[in-house]
Amino acid sequence: MKILIDAMGGDNAPLEIILGAIAARDEFDVGIALVGREDVICRLAEEQKLNLDGIEIFHAEDAIAMDDNPLDVRRKADCSIRVGMEMLARGEVDAFVGAGSTGAMHLGSTLYVRRISGIHRSAIATIIPLSTPMLLLDSGANTVVTPEHLVQFALMGSVYMKNIFNIERPRIGLLNNGTERTKGTELHIATYDLLNEHPHINFVGNIEGKQVPFDKCDVLVTDGFCGNILLKTIEGTASFVLKKVRGVFMQNVFTKAGAVMYKASFGRIKKEFDATEYGGAPFLGIKHPVIKAQGSSNAKAIKSAVKQAISYVETGLIDEIATLNSSVE
Amino acid sequence: MKILIDAMGGDNAPLEIILGAIAARDEFDVGIALVGREDVICRLAEEQKLNLDGIEIFHAEDAIAMDDNPLDVRRKADCSIRVGMEMLARGEVDAFVGAGSTGAMHLGSTLYVRRISGIHRSAIATIIPLSTPMLLLDSGANTVVTPEHLVQFALMGSVYMKNIFNIERPRIGLLNNGTERTKGTELHIATYDLLNEHPHINFVGNIEGKQVPFDKCDVLVTDGFCGNILLKTIEGTASFVLKKVRGVFMQNVFTKAGAVMYKASFGRIKKEFDATEYGGAPFLGIKHPVIKAQGSSNAKAIKSAVKQAISYVETGLIDEIATLNSSVE
Repeated sequence: MKILIDAMGGDNAPLEIILGAIAARDEFDVGIALVGREDVICRLAEEQKLNLDGIEIFHAEDAIAMDDNPLDVRRKADCSIRVGMEMLARGEVDAFVGAGSTGAMHLGSTLYVRRISGIHRSAIATIIPLSTPMLLLDSGANTVVTPEHLVQFALMGSVYMKNIFNIERPRIGLLNNGTERTKGTELHIATYDLLNEHPHINFVGNIEGKQVPFDKCDVLVTDGFCGNILLKTIEGTASFVLKKVRGVFMQNVFTKAGAVMYKASFGRIKKEFDATEYGGAPFLGIKHPVIKAQGSSNAKAIKSAVKQAISYVETGLIDEIATLNSSVE
Repeated sequence: MKILIDAMGGDNAPLEIILGAIAARDEFDVGIALVGREDVICRLAEEQKLNLDGIEIFHAEDAIAMDDNPLDVRRKADCSIRVGMEMLARGEVDAFVGAGSTGAMHLGSTLYVRRISGIHRSAIATIIPLSTPMLLLDSGANTVVTPEHLVQFALMGSVYMKNIFNIERPRIGLLNNGTERTKGTELHIATYDLLNEHPHINFVGNIEGKQVPFDKCDVLVTDGFCGNILLKTIEGTASFVLKKVRGVFMQNVFTKAGAVMYKASFGRIKKEFDATEYGGAPFLGIKHPVIKAQGSSNAKAIKSAVKQAISYVETGLIDEIATLNSSVE
């Protein structure tokens, strides 16, 4: 097995990405490869005295910056995302990991790796690290969807959580503005019935925003617009509340013991909200495994994403999605 | 001025509602009236030795329960919400305050009080008590909207925040999945341009979920579906994070001083998130003031909602909405 990593993608590229590749090579029994500017990678390795033994480097002359238009992936034939996706499509590597532009990676995966036959839309799936890991999809790729798209998202999310998190019958929830069957727009009412009747989906009903953190489902299905709002609202609110708590405690901390207690406690809480330990966001519905690591990824996050990519390949979950989906088409 | 309160609406009705009416009578220099089962109200007042002097009671034989279908407001001609809305429409009272079913109150206000001429949809506006009070609308009434509806929501929210919170030029934001002008669905792209060009709207651009708690705008405009998801996700996440923090601190609190410090701090934080001090949710776009108090309202929350209703009447903001809207129609 060979995992290809985009050396040029992410806020800390290329150094942290290269360090992540080295850590992955040292820890996992698979081939590790980098795609990007070979001259830049080699010069950096020399400067920093990094040992790249056993890591293959595939040259890509160009790169897509975080604020470039995702459509540039069509125009820049030599950019690392495009070169990497094409290698993945040809089977020269088994999975692609990148921390670069989400839009460019998603478009690149759709155009050059392509979707699983019978899957109409691929989704960006994100693990929300609250009570227990919950998979949210779509978390941003498709702002407008149909009930059929949402049902395929549910099926793909179910297969993913079964294979990667060993959950026997993942509970599927539909994000909605109330728990009753008739809640939401026409989209939600139609989707509710389809999910309810589906032979391979363990549907637990509509999930409201206030229930999301409290372990009501393993997979939460929604359109990419609401998924984005949900994900970022959780992030913003958690950050706001923790800041508020810190401010209040700081005023009350008049003893050294209090200050020490405060620091230890907040370190633990922040760690609990750290999504990087789960790796990155899998693109579900694409023919070969693609993992989008967070833009702020450091070496540890890249290594986690590689670990996740290995499971994505090993479990054969893409074949399972294809088979299950065609059985109900 | 006379403020009418629904004695039968809310989790703590009728006792806490009656106590709220008494508190409002004692504090504010306006007429206070109750609508509901006169026999029930009088018996309770006798049992609890409550002084109802100066509080008018209007009898309504029926009531709508929290889990009744909102459409029941059409069928139950004698329910307190329906009777109250009809009195408001006839000008017998100046504002209506209720803590009952949001759906029934909103439908009742639309059917029996009716919308301001030229306003196509009325919205439920909610104050989010984070950094500074921010008005979210629509927070649940209209799951599907047009760009024109959203522009009217922005205008109404702007007039409300100017009059009630004394903000000279309220900053209007559009909830979206990114800050760039081209983000979102067709609805958001079209709305962005309309808001940007509007002579009476101080549009500050798209607002992402993670920015919502951090004082980026005074009025946040969205459809009722996303508004509901946003509001409940903030509620759920804040509650989850505070529980988590409490859990971690409880394990660390080994001294009495620590426990005391913990209790004092959390009391303050919870108070900061307490929306009831702002009263309730105004329905904007209705011809006369209607305030929806939270279902869990106690006497204090009812009194706050009455205070808000008084400002709603006194400032004449409904006339201002009508004038401004007709000037740009």
